[in-house]
Amino acid sequence: MKIIVQKYGGTSVANVERIRNVAARVIETKNKGFSPVVVVSAMGDTTDVLISLAKQINPKPSTREMDMLMATGEQTSIALLAMAIEALGERAVSLTGAQSGIKTDDFFSKAKIDSIDTIRIKKELSDDKIVIVAGFQGATDDGDITTLGRGGSDTTAVALAVALDAEKCEIYTDVLGIYTTDPRIVKDASLLESISYDELLEMAKLGAGVMHPRSVELARKNKMPLIVRSAFDYGQDGTEIIEVNEMEKAQVRGVTLDEDIVRISVPNVPDRPGIAYKLFSSLINLNVHIDMILQNLNHDGFNDISFTVPVDDLERILPTINAFVDEVGASPIVVKKDVAKLSIVGTGITSDVKIASGLFGKIYELGINIEMISTSEIKISCIIDQSQAKQALEEVHKYFGLNTQ
Amino acid sequence: MKIIVQKYGGTSVANVERIRNVAARVIETKNKGFSPVVVVSAMGDTTDVLISLAKQINPKPSTREMDMLMATGEQTSIALLAMAIEALGERAVSLTGAQSGIKTDDFFSKAKIDSIDTIRIKKELSDDKIVIVAGFQGATDDGDITTLGRGGSDTTAVALAVALDAEKCEIYTDVLGIYTTDPRIVKDASLLESISYDELLEMAKLGAGVMHPRSVELARKNKMPLIVRSAFDYGQDGTEIIEVNEMEKAQVRGVTLDEDIVRISVPNVPDRPGIAYKLFSSLINLNVHIDMILQNLNHDGFNDISFTVPVDDLERILPTINAFVDEVGASPIVVKKDVAKLSIVGTGITSDVKIASGLFGKIYELGINIEMISTSEIKISCIIDQSQAKQALEEVHKYFGLNTQ
Repeated sequence: MKIIVQKYGGTSVANVERIRNVAARVIETKNKGFSPVVVVSAMGDTTDVLISLAKQINPKPSTREMDMLMATGEQTSIALLAMAIEALGERAVSLTGAQSGIKTDDFFSKAKIDSIDTIRIKKELSDDKIVIVAGFQGATDDGDITTLGRGGSDTTAVALAVALDAEKCEIYTDVLGIYTTDPRIVKDASLLESISYDELLEMAKLGAGVMHPRSVELARKNKMPLIVRSAFDYGQDGTEIIEVNEMEKAQVRGVTLDEDIVRISVPNVPDRPGIAYKLFSSLINLNVHIDMILQNLNHDGFNDISFTVPVDDLERILPTINAFVDEVGASPIVVKKDVAKLSIVGTGITSDVKIASGLFGKIYELGINIEMISTSEIKISCIIDQSQAKQALEEVHKYFGLNTQ
Repeated sequence: MKIIVQKYGGTSVANVERIRNVAARVIETKNKGFSPVVVVSAMGDTTDVLISLAKQINPKPSTREMDMLMATGEQTSIALLAMAIEALGERAVSLTGAQSGIKTDDFFSKAKIDSIDTIRIKKELSDDKIVIVAGFQGATDDGDITTLGRGGSDTTAVALAVALDAEKCEIYTDVLGIYTTDPRIVKDASLLESISYDELLEMAKLGAGVMHPRSVELARKNKMPLIVRSAFDYGQDGTEIIEVNEMEKAQVRGVTLDEDIVRISVPNVPDRPGIAYKLFSSLINLNVHIDMILQNLNHDGFNDISFTVPVDDLERILPTINAFVDEVGASPIVVKKDVAKLSIVGTGITSDVKIASGLFGKIYELGINIEMISTSEIKISCIIDQSQAKQALEEVHKYFGLNTQ
């Protein structure tokens, strides 16, 4: 049995017509000799409607009850997709997360998958049925319904593909695949035929937005072949996510821009061993992703510490930072909101000095000040002023030859 | 632990405001020292919206997938009601049919409850939580979601009350209780303080509509105290359903009208032993409720057979009846659609000749022809012309002194 897992996002099943299209696509896949397992998200804006309904009733609903509510969104789409497939004469069966054997921990609203018992799915597949699974959800050992949080449906798809030992996992979405940069900002962004897990991971983390890093990491760890492609134009092959080709010459594969960050500076921190560690460990305990850290020796015995965090985390971490400031006797913090992070991604690029110097040179040429720099194996990021960020993205994308034609 | 089961119908939870009211009512019940188990239906017209969505996708969706879809309606309302209760500072937990331990057979869309495993509900109650259960649904042994068909939420409530050995089961609805007749037709219908299970059963079967016979039968069998009362006016005590009071003088408790029937006549059926049995057994095999049967000796060796069936069953039974006509050589059938069944209900009324003759006399006085008559222990029904049915209902209701004041 050659199993293929296909995931269709909310826009792909947003109305009756689109659900019918997905049904036809799934049947086409079956007719090619595959056993399709189809993961779907909630229809269109269902999730937003449910959240707004809940907030009217309780401004702070418990996460358990939110999960109970949210899970109805995917349950609706799986039933409708199964009906659409049956209307075309094929046999189908829809399964909730719990029925699919997806066991999670009990961290409601951001549960993690513990295990998948595939008995039921395999039974339905061997009965020659197309299996439709509710994405984004699972159940605890007690049978309580959980949801998986951000990137949940992609994670369901990849985890199922791994558990079922599928041939591949196809992520159908509202774009043609993975681009060299955000095509909504840069008109001549190019579609990538292939990209490595690591590169996609960096792009995802840096805000490219097509797939959540969590699901990419899971695919990488299990070497599950992934394809990101269009739910609306099946003629397009999309982007294949592959293991890195070691022979490949270092080259920039994508340029990303993240404007949802803020820069926090703590001036005049006494220069004592472990003092920065103290600050960052307390923030890490709050589960904050601290991205770039800069420590400048300012003047005798004092440092300025700067770092970036996601803008959504700002409010909740301020008390912790201010407590630190009071404790060590630093100056009041400075928060700069109009910053952006421009990054280039590509395997091996940090070992090619021409690429780094080319990037910095181009930004300098544009008259833009680089406030912070950080690098990893496969990315180089610069913090720049937000007002010039889109122009920089466009120019850097062009500079590395990523534009179409 | 004094458990009380309360059931709130779709109109009682149709919007945010009403859900809040129900939450307050449930908490009030808890504060009186009861442990509430609350059964809710889907909000307002959710069910209709889901059905129409399904029909757009598949004119004949499979019942399994319909149940998967429909179950989201109640799952939404239980989550929202739990949130509303939590917003008022009480602890609550919502449970789907499956989570509540409601095991059914696998007749999707009209499943019957096989058993209820109350472990989970009892655990939550002993944790001092208010338990909210999705009405109308259960699960098979395989974990497939089923719905219970018509009267499903009432059945969930009564079955839970029985399984939990509850003090009583309260059915909250959009009317004040059980009336002597349909108050939408007869303006001065009286609210009954009490009525026996048997009388209510007859009224329900005859189309009075407040409670489905299935749930009343279950309550009667288990002697579960039932109260039907208003979800909008908690000041009203509603109607208590009691065992019959043997001492009570025979009296008419209610008058009902059922316009959703048709009269079928098969003329010139050869008068041979067992021939009527042949027709009716084949119809019973189709699961049709044949209500009234009249066999008239017509002329030498031939009978006219007439009977009534629910109008919804007409289409599907015609082929069977016509096959019978062909086989025995009877004349083509005559279907009369503009008929109605007027019934009076009350324990002991058929043994009081004054009541029966009073009914027939009154109808005669109104110049209405009685086409068929049937009686049971506690009811007398007449088939009359539909055009005069509402007038007859009003007059008969008055004749037996059931109007208010």
